[in-house]
Parts: sequence; C-alpha cells; structure tokens
Amino acid sequence: MLHSQQWDVSTGFQKIALIGLGLIGSSIGQAIIHKNIAQCVSGYDKEADTLQCAFDIKCINKACNTAAEAVKDADIVIICVPVGEIKNTILEILSYLKEGAIITDVGSTKQSVCDHVYPLLPSSVQFVPAHPVAGTQFTGPEAGMVELFENRWCILCPSDNTKSDSIAKIRSLWERMGAWVEIMTPSEHDMILAVTSHIPHVIAYTMMLTAVRIEEEHPFDIAKFSAGGFRSATRIACSSPIMVRDILLHNSDAILGALREFSDCCKQVEQLIINNDGDSLLTLLEDLQKERLKIP
Amino acid sequence: MLHSQQWDVSTGFQKIALIGLGLIGSSIGQAIIHKNIAQCVSGYDKEADTLQCAFDIKCINKACNTAAEAVKDADIVIICVPVGEIKNTILEILSYLKEGAIITDVGSTKQSVCDHVYPLLPSSVQFVPAHPVAGTQFTGPEAGMVELFENRWCILCPSDNTKSDSIAKIRSLWERMGAWVEIMTPSEHDMILAVTSHIPHVIAYTMMLTAVRIEEEHPFDIAKFSAGGFRSATRIACSSPIMVRDILLHNSDAILGALREFSDCCKQVEQLIINNDGDSLLTLLEDLQKERLKIP
Repeated sequence: MLHSQQWDVSTGFQKIALIGLGLIGSSIGQAIIHKNIAQCVSGYDKEADTLQCAFDIKCINKACNTAAEAVKDADIVIICVPVGEIKNTILEILSYLKEGAIITDVGSTKQSVCDHVYPLLPSSVQFVPAHPVAGTQFTGPEAGMVELFENRWCILCPSDNTKSDSIAKIRSLWERMGAWVEIMTPSEHDMILAVTSHIPHVIAYTMMLTAVRIEEEHPFDIAKFSAGGFRSATRIACSSPIMVRDILLHNSDAILGALREFSDCCKQVEQLIINNDGDSLLTLLEDLQKERLKIP
Repeated sequence: MLHSQQWDVSTGFQKIALIGLGLIGSSIGQAIIHKNIAQCVSGYDKEADTLQCAFDIKCINKACNTAAEAVKDADIVIICVPVGEIKNTILEILSYLKEGAIITDVGSTKQSVCDHVYPLLPSSVQFVPAHPVAGTQFTGPEAGMVELFENRWCILCPSDNTKSDSIAKIRSLWERMGAWVEIMTPSEHDMILAVTSHIPHVIAYTMMLTAVRIEEEHPFDIAKFSAGGFRSATRIACSSPIMVRDILLHNSDAILGALREFSDCCKQVEQLIINNDGDSLLTLLEDLQKERLKIP
C-alpha cells in the first residue's frame, strides 16, 4: 500500500535505510531529511501503524513493507529496534544488502550486540556499533525530534577489524546530525552506561514498586502527594518496558555490578542515619552536592 | 542598617513574620505580598546577606535584625528554617510573641517537629504544624517564586489541642497562596513523605556516590556521558545538604522503613535479571510504567 510513496531530498549519502521507527529511528530520519544528509531515507517498521505514522510525519521518504525492501541499494542501514531484536533483524536483511553497505545500530548496550552480530556477518559487510546517548521518556515516531542528537554524545564501538573508512562514514553521519562522537570499547561503553542510564532506569522502576508496595500496606494515595522529588526520580519509569527489559538482560553483568555498588552506597548512607551521625552525613551530602553541581 | 526599611501592602492579616528566608520563606513572602494577604511581612534570617537579598527582591517588606524583632505584633509567625533549627528558633521568639499569635512551620518532617515544639509552648500560644509539598532543587531567596505553592498540597498536622480557629486561619493562609490543604496526623505525613520525597533524596545522593565510587575505580568521565536518566535521577542531589541532613535525621524511622522496602524491591528486580527472566521482568516493568503514567 505504501510501496511507491516517495519524495526527494538533495545530496549527501545516496540512500539510508532505517529499520525500526520509534523515538530514535524517527529522530534520525527527521535529522537526515532536514539536514539533507541523504537523498533517500527508506524505512520499515514491523508495526503497520508506526510505519504509516513515520511516513506521514516525514521522518522517512520511502515506506517499505519489508526490511529487505528497505535496505535495497542502501549505503547505510541503521537498525533502530530494541536490543533484543537486533540479531533477528540482521538475519532478515543480510541477503538483501548492497555490496559495501555499512550496518550500524543505536542499541543502548554494545558488548552483547557485538557478540550477537559479528558472527553473522560475511567479511563483505561492515558493522559499526553505535549508541547515541539521547532520548526522552516518550516513545513512538511522533515523539521524534529533529534536534534530539544535537550537542549529545554518540558512542561508536568498532572492532579491530572495522575499516577506518566505515568508521569515518558513520562518524560523519552522526556529526552531521549535530552529535559529538567518541570511540571506545563495547565493555567501556557498557560500564559507563550502566551507571549513567541503566541503573537510573532500575531505580526509577524500583521506586515505583516501593510506592505500590507501601500503598498496598497503608491507605495512602502516594501519587496525590508526589512531590517533585518523586516525579523526577521516577520520570524514566515511563520509558518503553520492552526497551528497558532488553537493556537489563543484555547488559546484565555491568548492571548487576553497578547495582552492588549502589546497594553498598545505600547501606553507607543508611548506617549514618542509624548512627544519627549528622556531621558525617552533612560532609557526605555536601561533597555529593558539589559533584552534582558540576553536571550541567 | 535594614531596621527602618518598610513599604506598605493592603488588607488581609495585619502582620505575618517569616523566620528564615530561603527558597520557601522567600516564596511565601512573595505570595503574601503579591496577593495582599497581609499588610506587613516582616522577615529575619541569621545570614545578613540572605536578609538583605530577601528585602531587595521584595519577599518581605520589613527586614529585622533579630527574630524577636520580626515576630513583634505578628498575627502569624511562619518558621521557615531547616527542621533541625526549629526548636531553637522557637526558643528565641517565645517571649516576644503577641498574645494570641499563631506559630506555624514548613518543615518536611512533622512528628519530630511536634515532639520538639509542643513541650516548649505555653497554652496561650497556638502551633499549627504545616508542610507545603513544593520546592525546587535550588536554594536561597532568589530561587523563590510567587507561584511556588499554586495547585500544590500543603499538609497540616494539628494536634487534638489545636483550636479550630487557628487551623482555619492557617488553612486560609495557604489557600490564599493557591495551595490545596489536607489535614492528617504527623505520622501519616512522615510515612507518605518518606516515600514521595525523602527516599528520592537518599537515592539521588546515593546514585551520585555510586558514580563517584565507580569513577575512582575506572578512568571514566561519567558526568561527560550522563544521559537524561542520570540527570533526572540525581537532580535533587543539588538540594540544600543541611535541609536534607535534618530531614534524614528527623524522620529516620519512616525513612529507614521505606529504605528497607526499597532495598527488597531492588533485590526482586535484581533477581529477575540474574534469572534472565524476560517475561516476568516485562510484566513487572509494564505494570510499573502504567502506575507511573497515572502521575501527571
């Protein structure tokens, strides 16, 4: 039905394919089209409504009914599906890729993606693992924003076998979308993101679970009196549950390690409260406030 | 120096005194003056700079060099100092109160405030414990906002001996500032606030401590890659360390209880990750996302 819908944009890469058109896929498409980074952005999403919506809001200019059709002739294929679906998505498109096509992704975990993807690929296909550290708590193509990646980091985690030319192309793609690019190993990425993103997600959901449990025991309406603290602490519990589940299972080692550290830190604060040790508590809170104030 | 500075506002209560002119005291003063709730707002802060600033930005119209001077002839005295300083502040003003004056406060814990304050008071002085559930992560009089309490809850925790007339006056004061008023017992208040505000503060600081510890062990710049998740999870670690320390020590029972619940919930999520139990994890995340989406 959507097969032949198409319009033109000028210069840049010839064709970029987006597989998965949620918040991130939609924002990438909007940025590519808005900044004329590719002549054609083809897109596919397994949800027909999402595909139609993505086409209607012009984050793609060719809507395709299969992933195979979307990647035909594409110079770059960007996989924007939840981490747990990346492997199957690659298997779906592998036979339809153009010679020399580069695959990249936007997954929030990198070691498991590399472990799953590299063994599938013939030597003719280049894969440059990527993770734009940007997002909102909202989901779906309508939540996409042309400026989502501006002045945000995109982390690339190429292997020793990735060609420098392929890395340069993906770096250029992200820089043209306004992002800063940093290169690191998948395990470095996973450890940093465990602290900066994954543990905050675990905590936000856990805070909600705590409130639900306490409401079960007492006749309190916690939502009614939820102060700014509770709202900001739980804001990211609005995120896509599938995305979060996949992250938790695909970066479990780093996340469990960081959770142990968090739990130890929690016990340290708890002990200061139990000991009624106001001086040590104040010193600790002051030091941590200083650290937090360094973050813009 | 500031002794004789004064200007007029029209109608309402004759005189309201504010002791402590940080974010909350300043916002109360601004709201009272802006909405003509009192003819005079006198103010005192033990920090001379804070007092001068509060006068300059017009959140008080009489700056006083002592708390005793500020409360002279006041119908209502609002104590806006950190919870740990309320008792000494009351002792400072007690002999200078007008006959029939009502004392109220804005402390984030209520049982300990009641325990400390009620024994000090002669029967001629009424105390109506109050807590406006509003704030930002910023501190000081410049951070105050005239609309801070609009459409926010103010919880009153009067005792059985508090006169209904005194409660009505304090209710009216908060309602005129735009707040919704709810009455509950101090222990109910403390348990609800432990979940909605105090534990989120503990977690925000603990998350910062976790990041600092992991940075000590690894050469990561966590702040550099801090995603929205980390920033919103730690936002309230910018709050006043003294205020937070006092809250943690003055509501320790409810906080330690809620922290135990939080820790149990954390272990439940952790176990699902260890078990690689994607189905149960997804169901839990979906349920909690639904709960979070109910909160505006």
